[in-house]
This record gives sequence, structure tokens and C-alpha cells, in this order.
Amino acid sequence: MPSNILGHNFTLLSFGESHGKCIGAVVDGCPAGLKLSEEDIQPMLDLRKPGQSSITTQRKEADAVSILSGVFEGYTTGAPICMIIWNTDSDSSSYKEFRTKPRPGHADYTGYVKYGGFNDYRGSGRFSGRLTATLVMGGAIALKILKNYLNIDIISYTKSIGNVELDTRNIPLDILASNRYTNDVRCPNSEVSRKMKEEILAARRDGDSLGGVIECIVSGVPAGVGEPIFESIESEISSGLFSIPAVKGVEFGSGFKGSTYRGSTNNDSFFIDSQDGSIRTKSNNSGGILGGITDGMPLVFRVAFKPAASIPKLQKTVNLKERSESDLLVTGRHDPCVVPRAPPVVDSVTGIILLDSCMKANLIPRVLR
Amino acid sequence: MPSNILGHNFTLLSFGESHGKCIGAVVDGCPAGLKLSEEDIQPMLDLRKPGQSSITTQRKEADAVSILSGVFEGYTTGAPICMIIWNTDSDSSSYKEFRTKPRPGHADYTGYVKYGGFNDYRGSGRFSGRLTATLVMGGAIALKILKNYLNIDIISYTKSIGNVELDTRNIPLDILASNRYTNDVRCPNSEVSRKMKEEILAARRDGDSLGGVIECIVSGVPAGVGEPIFESIESEISSGLFSIPAVKGVEFGSGFKGSTYRGSTNNDSFFIDSQDGSIRTKSNNSGGILGGITDGMPLVFRVAFKPAASIPKLQKTVNLKERSESDLLVTGRHDPCVVPRAPPVVDSVTGIILLDSCMKANLIPRVLR
Amino acid sequence: MPSNILGHNFTLLSFGESHGKCIGAVVDGCPAGLKLSEEDIQPMLDLRKPGQSSITTQRKEADAVSILSGVFEGYTTGAPICMIIWNTDSDSSSYKEFRTKPRPGHADYTGYVKYGGFNDYRGSGRFSGRLTATLVMGGAIALKILKNYLNIDIISYTKSIGNVELDTRNIPLDILASNRYTNDVRCPNSEVSRKMKEEILAARRDGDSLGGVIECIVSGVPAGVGEPIFESIESEISSGLFSIPAVKGVEFGSGFKGSTYRGSTNNDSFFIDSQDGSIRTKSNNSGGILGGITDGMPLVFRVAFKPAASIPKLQKTVNLKERSESDLLVTGRHDPCVVPRAPPVVDSVTGIILLDSCMKANLIPRVLR
Amino acid sequence: MPSNILGHNFTLLSFGESHGKCIGAVVDGCPAGLKLSEEDIQPMLDLRKPGQSSITTQRKEADAVSILSGVFEGYTTGAPICMIIWNTDSDSSSYKEFRTKPRPGHADYTGYVKYGGFNDYRGSGRFSGRLTATLVMGGAIALKILKNYLNIDIISYTKSIGNVELDTRNIPLDILASNRYTNDVRCPNSEVSRKMKEEILAARRDGDSLGGVIECIVSGVPAGVGEPIFESIESEISSGLFSIPAVKGVEFGSGFKGSTYRGSTNNDSFFIDSQDGSIRTKSNNSGGILGGITDGMPLVFRVAFKPAASIPKLQKTVNLKERSESDLLVTGRHDPCVVPRAPPVVDSVTGIILLDSCMKANLIPRVLR
Repeated sequence: MPSNILGHNFTLLSFGESHGKCIGAVVDGCPAGLKLSEEDIQPMLDLRKPGQSSITTQRKEADAVSILSGVFEGYTTGAPICMIIWNTDSDSSSYKEFRTKPRPGHADYTGYVKYGGFNDYRGSGRFSGRLTATLVMGGAIALKILKNYLNIDIISYTKSIGNVELDTRNIPLDILASNRYTNDVRCPNSEVSRKMKEEILAARRDGDSLGGVIECIVSGVPAGVGEPIFESIESEISSGLFSIPAVKGVEFGSGFKGSTYRGSTNNDSFFIDSQDGSIRTKSNNSGGILGGITDGMPLVFRVAFKPAASIPKLQKTVNLKERSESDLLVTGRHDPCVVPRAPPVVDSVTGIILLDSCMKANLIPRVLR
Repeated sequence: MPSNILGHNFTLLSFGESHGKCIGAVVDGCPAGLKLSEEDIQPMLDLRKPGQSSITTQRKEADAVSILSGVFEGYTTGAPICMIIWNTDSDSSSYKEFRTKPRPGHADYTGYVKYGGFNDYRGSGRFSGRLTATLVMGGAIALKILKNYLNIDIISYTKSIGNVELDTRNIPLDILASNRYTNDVRCPNSEVSRKMKEEILAARRDGDSLGGVIECIVSGVPAGVGEPIFESIESEISSGLFSIPAVKGVEFGSGFKGSTYRGSTNNDSFFIDSQDGSIRTKSNNSGGILGGITDGMPLVFRVAFKPAASIPKLQKTVNLKERSESDLLVTGRHDPCVVPRAPPVVDSVTGIILLDSCMKANLIPRVLR
Repeated sequence: MPSNILGHNFTLLSFGESHGKCIGAVVDGCPAGLKLSEEDIQPMLDLRKPGQSSITTQRKEADAVSILSGVFEGYTTGAPICMIIWNTDSDSSSYKEFRTKPRPGHADYTGYVKYGGFNDYRGSGRFSGRLTATLVMGGAIALKILKNYLNIDIISYTKSIGNVELDTRNIPLDILASNRYTNDVRCPNSEVSRKMKEEILAARRDGDSLGGVIECIVSGVPAGVGEPIFESIESEISSGLFSIPAVKGVEFGSGFKGSTYRGSTNNDSFFIDSQDGSIRTKSNNSGGILGGITDGMPLVFRVAFKPAASIPKLQKTVNLKERSESDLLVTGRHDPCVVPRAPPVVDSVTGIILLDSCMKANLIPRVLR
Repeated sequence: MPSNILGHNFTLLSFGESHGKCIGAVVDGCPAGLKLSEEDIQPMLDLRKPGQSSITTQRKEADAVSILSGVFEGYTTGAPICMIIWNTDSDSSSYKEFRTKPRPGHADYTGYVKYGGFNDYRGSGRFSGRLTATLVMGGAIALKILKNYLNIDIISYTKSIGNVELDTRNIPLDILASNRYTNDVRCPNSEVSRKMKEEILAARRDGDSLGGVIECIVSGVPAGVGEPIFESIESEISSGLFSIPAVKGVEFGSGFKGSTYRGSTNNDSFFIDSQDGSIRTKSNNSGGILGGITDGMPLVFRVAFKPAASIPKLQKTVNLKERSESDLLVTGRHDPCVVPRAPPVVDSVTGIILLDSCMKANLIPRVLR
């Protein structure tokens, strides 16, 4: 199994390097008959792209996507969909040093070891957060299918930045959805988001960076999606999420906190919804998943992002060629916090995985109409 | 890709049901030339099996494994290794009710929906924690190869039960390793383990259950293992861990807590170890993984287990046949907390995934000698 | 990808050795709700088993299959189905010599090289034709689903033995189907089958062996099954067929002979069947496959089997230990021609592949009713 | 598993359509450290491209390949290698008719059924022989690695066109290799190739087409490559070859003819080569493969191509919209015989599969030096 592919039925292959000619994706397994053009993909890329506010990197990339194959007369054909973004605003000058002096917290060292020094180090090459744009290319397609054919919505937003956290327990899903993109940090509460922005600006002033947590809620998933044991929904989604650079933790439902509860608190009682007769649970500590299979409740999970590794402070590293210790100052244009740019990426990975799982469960026809 | 298989090169297929004739595993991809007999596997199964102490279920299973294929004259042949445990102490009488009245927190409802009611409900069927024994069958083999050929040690232990937590930061790895199996809760500190046991017994007295956290440290992993992006070590390990019933969270290195740090705190500085000239990091907030690839430091991760779902308290559920709400009292023999039985399972899953990744990296020959 | 698995959605894992404890198979991906017992599988195994006539090996194996998992209350559950045959009539004494003196035409030498001498040599171990029984275990299940849910029939029969060939062009499919098992050689014409049997007996008298060709016709396949390019129906079926020991050639439709035709002869004109309005072709030189996808006509292909490699004649080989040339006399109980035992195996492989392809095309529900 | 991917470790994903914007390939799994530029790939594409002689289509395509990713400073990086050819000389006007009136022998009908009419019909879309250029892109890389690191040579050539056949049994491999590209039909004998060319020109004059057989010999393969049963070398190679449009038969070694031999003739006796002490076989009826695993002798196989389906003769078809019978005259620029353009394609598929199998056998390091 090639390692640059996500998914089993609906699959995304990612290619390209941060400062190479282009970055791109090939979606294989998309059903035929989906109305699709660049306009379905570009808005989601725009939500992720850099240079949008004072708290993201000032690197300017148009990130304009072109569909090269798999679409004919405005509809998908069932053939692989190759999409590409040509790189434009690359400045690789500052990276040469990192080839032999690996930046702490980055993949310079591990890439060097694994590829014997042949990896493209410019702009972090394959390890760059820029590659998450290739996930968004496929994610936008997956989200469109999920929405149009199963009425599934995937809503990611910033839950915490550093120590500033939004308590989302009592916020209705439609508010989370409508408010999340009304501010720079992508947090669906204006007051908390202002504090988050202040935190980020303060960290930047200190030549430092911050991490945070993205929460994601998926509504509309029918019961019965996911396979037991090794292709549990948790296994599949976490596997995808840990592919996003800087992700170091994933939890579903009550997660780590739930491990301190007693069973009588954590168990979700079933009841029958008087509105439509559907079976639901009163609480949702399971995050909508029992035995690795969806139970019809919204999926809920959180994703921990470490603080951005590139900081304009003198750090300790080693010189790989001379085998000696060395100081290092990382310059260049970097995000002081990647979390505000992450929601479209988390949405995308979740969408690809979930569509893939729905296809396994035969919920999506091979030809859409 | 069949959904009951873990791994790409070294693979484990799990089969069987909790109260069926047997449970079993087939390992495909094991190199030839490994000395192997039931005695390599049974001790690890024994660490997992029920009925060992006052804090686990009183169900008694010998869990005696037989190797049916793939071993000849005491050595692996390179052919699939089928292993089986015949079920003996099954009492399915109490489960019939759950077929139509799903237990909260269990997979009764989702299994019913997914398989149209055809799933074997007895003892939770495929969803039973008992199936983790099939993971241990393959894990024991993987651990032996990792130890013998790469000197890799995988050490899981109980870090917390409910709100009782062991601070492991300053405990040396060899102490964690040698102490973890000296008590019933598998916590490498006698005082904390006593408190944990009290917590479990208190929960049981209250007709309730507890969850907890397993921590795992893997030493000896060379730098350069793991594939970037979709087969990152984090993706692969988390995917395996979320296959274990009751797991709801996984974090690597500083994990969720690290998302509150600043970059200057979370980044791990490189230095050169004066003892052997190797490149190491001063802290290990990355958990030994940068860019999805191992960096030569110990892997560190934590796994959150929810409280056991089976509790002898009256709970609310629905009757699937009559489509009505209903009370339910879950009887039978159940663990008040599954965490103490989990370390061999976490070791096993980690071992299978890690060996698989080492094989991808060409670190294991096809014939061992 | 483990190498002992056939199929992507409906998958069969084969395990066991010819003279080991058992041979077995695990089917993963079978839909839930199929009525299934050993009685669905045993008759097809009986058609393959040895010792049935004067032209097959006199080795007597009951080949009684047991289902160990995945079936509950008479129906498949959606979980993996493990099936096993315990080996009984094994006499390994004659094989020890072959470990160091590889038999010409057998896998003794290649197995020795690949597995460093650790492979189970007894009865040819994993390379034995006996392992085709594991294909039949899964094939019987696949054929039942194909027949019951899509009305697909797979009819393999002996087309030639040595130089004796049956011209099947004008024999109706129902005659081929009903006559094929009326004689020892599995050829649907009594006169030709008698000549074939004579050929086999003559070869045996001469201490020699014969090969032959199996033809397979599959009726009822709807148009649109198969994926273009790398998972073409031809790719998938041929890949499966070449897994059968002794198979050295596969051709579809007019095949090798068709490569001598002109296009005007080989092209199959379309017409509309006046009976049911369906689109059909007048000839079927394509073997029912255009662009790798079924066109609604019967699939037609032929499989060439080499003459059995075990012959009681003095042959030249080498001594692997002494690195010298050597004579070898292969004794033991062997088929003078494996072709008469092959039709159930070809049916099985074809059934597994075809069901797998139909599942990819969403033609089979996940729960059968 | 996505269906547009060939290989497990060294993989090729093919994308693009015959008359779309481009055709392309992504190679995933190529080791780092291989010196690579377009100049390694273009010569092999040139051998395949149309418009080179009087016996191929007059369509003119520069078929100039660009490498978009995965190569840095002249060496592969271990990241996916995306390669692209922009389509230039597309004239789709004649194809519109085939959308509703499928051409006999083509995939117009099956593509229409499978993709509900959404497939790109222009120039046969994904089903076009033009897509074999994407196989050559990856094949050129594979062949370079096989040659440089294992000294493996893959030599395909035209063995027969229609009824004109070259007896290759006594022609040394180096002559086959050096002569095959000295003439338009790619047959390594000047006299026979002249007759073949006459046959093709005669068929074209008659408004007709021809098929033929490609033979392939692979030298230098070490013993022990290939996996038993489902990933036998025959399974893998045949699966790849049947992905090439127009291929309808594949046989290894003595193949179909060998099925008429007796065992004493077909078995290949082992001997010790006095030159280098290696173990070899006197004959090579097995085609270098025993039990699915290479035995150190050259691989030998033949591939049957049906006559080109596009012929300028009035043919019978149906109108899919009107559901009526119809006449059809296929116009446009077409090859009267595709066989002369096939050797680089057969080389490529074989190279990809063989490199993939060698990587499974751990024969290729992850970083080449």
C-alpha cells in the first residue's frame, strides 16, 4: 500500500512539495455524475490559505486550484480527478541551513535520516503544513457528496488557543456552524475569539508560538457506518487526523476526561425521540460511536495541535555534517499558531474518511444523479 | 481491504466470537526462521486473561493457545500462522435480552443496525473485549521479533484509574518495566496501585465502574521509522489503539497538555549524547516522533479507556422490536474496570504496528537467522 | 498487503500446509444474513478431493470442513468465517529427500531459496495442490451468493487433456453444465471424456503425466462489472487463476487464436435481443469483456495446466547441500493429471473474484435477506 | 483499494483522458537517491508514441513528459513523483457519435453502462490506448532501478503479427535485444519483420486490422522473487498485462502448448552451471517460475493482442438512446495494428511489477546510492 494515499474506496493521493513546482492531489474512487468545478473547491482552499490576517503567516499564495482530469462537461466521470496548485511565492533561501542544522520540533532531522539527505528541504518539503491544501482539494469534493446525498454536515472550529478555551457544551450546532468563520481565529464566540487573538499576538511579540485544540461535530451521520475492530470509525478518523502536521492528540466524546468518570455517568441512555421516532441517546459521551460504529448521534471529537515549531528565538540543535552542537535562529515567515488555519483541514480529512466509510457501507451509489 | 486485518506487511487477521466455538488470529507476513512455540505466546495471554484477581471478572477461561500452521520444527516458515483458543466458559443466557434491549455504552445497538440483527449477540460477539486476546496472539510474536532483532522494548502500564494518577515523569524506564506486573492494577508504583485498587473496589461496591489511562513507552526504536503523511507513526499506532474496545483518546508526547504550551517550551532541543555520539533531544515533548517519523528517542503515548459499560444498575434503554422505552438491568460477570487487563493488549497492538513499520523501512530481513 | 489474501471486498485468506495439522481459510467481507452451513461447502470439496477414481491419486482424505466462526443460528453474521479441514492421511516419509534434492517442475527449490530452508517441505507444504481446497471453501460461499442474488452460474469443465480436445463451440451451456460431472475427467462429452481417460491411463502406464485446459463459462453477469485499467475483470480473474498451482496460461474470448484474426472477424457486432430487448453481441470473441468491464454476454476463458510435475521416472536434479548434480526418483501417491480435479477450483477462484467485483460495483447489499 | 493503482510497494497511479487536458502518472514508493530526469523517461515514451511510421496512426503527439514533483537537485526524494503529458493533437469530432452508437470491440458500451453516460467518450477517454503512455512513465523509472541495482533486463518484442510468426527459440537474448527496435514492427528479425509489415499494410488496404503476440524475456532475476499463492509472479505480471488495452491472453514458459506435453518433456531438469556454480535448468518450460517464485532462469512469457477494434468498415451496432439497431462507420486516425507500439508498454508493466516484487523481497534499499 503506497503511503501517500488516504482512504480505501474514496481515496486521495497527495503529491508535491512546499517550494517545488506545485502541490496536487488525485482523488480516485469518486462516483460519476457529481457536478464539480474549481468553484466547489476554491472557497475551502481560501479559508485555509495564508496571508489572510495579522495572526497568520504573511506568505501570499493565491492557491488557485486547477482540475486536470476526471471531470467532463461539468460532471465527474468516475475517473481519477487530478487537481493542482502551482507554487508561486516560494523563498527557499532561509531553509538551506536547516538541511544540516535541523530545527527543533520540525521534521528536518527525521527526513534527513529517512531519505539519506535526498529529501527536498525547501520550505519543509513534503512535511510542510502547506501540503494540507492537498487534503482540502479532496475534502471539498467529499464534503459536497456527503452534504448533497446524505445531508451530513462537518463543523470544525477552534475550541482553545493556549490556555484560552471556549466551553461549547451549550452552544447549538447551528450557531457553531454560522459563527466559526466570523473571526480570524475561527472560534464561534466573538468574546473568546478576541482573547484568543490577543494570546496569539502576545506570543508573537515574545518571539514565541501557541498551540490549541480543534473540536469537530458531524451531524447527519446515519447509524451503522464504520467497521468493527480495525476499521472502526475512531481508527479511521484518528489515522487521518494524525496525518495533519502538528496534531499530537485525538479524543472522541468524553475522551480523556471521560476516563475519570464512573460508568453510570459516562454511559449514554437510549430513548425514543418523540418527534420522529428515532432512537437517540440523552447524553453523547460516546461521541456518536459505539463499538467503532456510528449510532446516529452527532460525531464529536477534539484534535490537539502542538504550538508552531518555528519560533524566532535562538534554539539549540546539532550540525549533522560536523556532528557538533550548534545554535540556530529560525527566520522566515511563519504562523505563530496554526490552529486558526486548521478547521478546513480537519473538515476535509473527516469528510474524506467519512465518505470512504459510507461507501464501504454501500450508502453512496457508483453513479450519482 | 478486509476490515478485520491490522497491518500492511506484518498483518494480523482476527476471527471468532466471544461465546462462539473459538477465537483466533492469523498472522500473515511473519518472516521465516523465528523460533516460535505456544510458550512464546501463552505468558502474554495469561497476563490478559480474566479471573486473576478480585478486581477483574470472575469468568474463568484457560485461554490456552494452539498454533495450527506456519511453524515447522520449531521455526516459522514464512507461511500464515493460524492460532486458536477454544472457548470454554461461556454462559450466554443473560445476553438474549440485549438483542432487543441494547445496553447503554455497548455495541448492541450499532451491531444490530449494521448487521440487520444477524450478528452473534452472545457475550457481545465480535465486539467483546475478549477479542483482544486475538491481538495478543499476534502481538507476542511481534514483540519477540522486535526484541530479538532490534532490541526494542514496549512497556505499557496503568497511569491512572478514575482520578488516581501516577506521575511517571521521573520514574526510570527499567523501574516502570520491572514493577508494572507486581500488582493487580498493573501500575508500577505500589502505593498508587493500592489506591487504584481501592477505587475499583469502591466503584464495584456502588454497582458502578471506572476507566483510566494506559501509558506506553517504547525504547530502542531507531530514527527513520514511519512514513510521512498518511502512514505516520502516530496515524498507524492510533489506528491500532482505537481498535481496542473502550479506547476513546490517544495522545503522543505532551499531547493535549502540550497544546497549551508555548513553542519555546514544547520544542525539544537537539544535542549530541557524549556517551555514544548519538543525536538526542533534551526533552521529549514530541513523544519520539517528528513529521510522523521516529527520531530515535523513546516513543511515548497515552491511551484513554472509558469506564466499563456493564454496570449492575438499572439503566434506560429502548426495546428495538417494540420501539418503546424500557428499563434494563445488566447482570452477569463483568470487569468493574478493564484498564488492569489492558497493558498486554496495548503492548500487542503497538508491537504489531511497529514491526509493520520497521518492515516497511526494510529493517527486518525476510528470513531471520 | 499480505500475500495470502485473495480479493478486496470479499476476501479469502488461506492458511495451513499439506501435511501440517490442518488447512483452512478465513473469508472476510461476507455479507450478513446468508444461510450457510457446512452442507453448502462440503459437496464442492467432495468434487475436488482425491481418491475418487482410477485417474486421481489414491491418497484418501475425508476433507471434512468445519465452520469455526462467522455463522450464528444458521446465518452469516458479517464477521470473518473461519473454516478448517484437519489433515488425516499424511505420509511425509518420501518428502525428506526433496528438501535437499528439489524435484524438477516443483517449488522445492524456489521455496528453499525464498524461505532459507525453513519452509515446511512435507507434501510440498504451502505449494501443494491440496491447498486449493482452501479456495473451494471460500468459493462455495461466493458461488451461493452469486447464484442466489444475481443468478450467476459459473461452469468450468475439462476442454482438453494432452492432445485430446473437445470442441465446445456448439454445445449449449446447459448441456455443458449438466454433463460435466458425469465422468471422471469432468468433460461434458462422454466420448471425448473416454478418450481423455485413456490418455491419462496411458501416461500413467508410461510413468508419465499429462496437462490440459479447463474452459469456464459464466452466465448471468450484468453489464458494468469490473474496473477499467488495473482492476479489469481480466486482470482480476487471471491474477486469481495463476494462483492455482500448475496454471501457466489464461486467455479470454478468442484469446491467442484471436490474435491471428482480422478486426472484421474478431469484433463482436451489437444487436438488440428481440426476446427481452437487451443489448447483446452476435459473436463473443471478447469473452464478455470490453475495456475490462463486463458487457452482459457470458464470460468465456480458458486456463492451461501444465502436466503434473511428479512422475515416477528417474530425473536429473541437484543436491542443494552438497552443491552437486544428482539423480532423483519421485515416489509416493500422485495425480497423473490434475486437470480432472480442477473444475471446482476454477469455479471457486472465479466466484470469489466475481463476487468481489460485484461488491465493488455495489451490486450486493451488506445484509442479505 | 483504488482501482487506478498498479503495485503494492512501488506503485503507479494513472490519471487523465485521451482528449482531456493531459495524461499523467504518480509513482509512489520510489526509493530516494535515484538520479532521474525527463531524459530517463522520454526515450521510452518516444518508442511508443504514434506517427512514427506508415503502419501506425498518423496522429502526431509530441508526448513530452514533465516531472512535477518527487525529484530534487536531480535525484528522487522518496516523495511521490508526478509526471504529466499535456495533450495537444486531439480531434474529438468523430467520437460524439460513439456515445450513443458504441463501436464493436471498444469500451464505448461498457463505459456508458458503468458510468451512466458520464464518462469522457472523446478519443475513448480512459479506455484509450493512449493511456498506456502513463504506464511507460512509471515503467521507465522501474526499468532504470532494476537495471542499475539488480542488472535485470526486460526485453519485449513482436513475436507474431496475424499469422506471421517469428520462431525465437534459437535466437540469443542479446540479438533479440539489439535487433528489436531496428524496424517498424519491433520484431528482432529483418526478414520476418518485413513480412509482418506487409501483412499490416495489406490489412489496412482492406479497411481491416490485425493483432499479434508480444514475447517478453527478463534476464537477471535472482531466485526467490514472488510470493506463493495469491501474489505469485504469474498472478502479478498477468494482472498488470491484462490492464493493457487489447490484451486477451497471457502464458508463461511453455504455456498453452505445454499443456499438451507429457511431464517428462515439460519438467525442467536442474543442473549446476560449471561457469559460476549456479543452479540452473536445462530447459525453461516453466518460464523461470516455480510455485509462483522465480528460480533464477530468465522469465519468459507471451501476450496476445486482439486485432485493433477500429476499422474503416461498415459495422453493426445499436443506438443506446433509441434502443434500435444501427450501422456504424468508424472514421478517424487509427492504428491498423497496435502490436508494434506495445513492446515499451509490456516492458513497462513488467518492470513495475517486477520492481514491486523485488521490493517485497527486500532486494531494493529505501535509499539508493
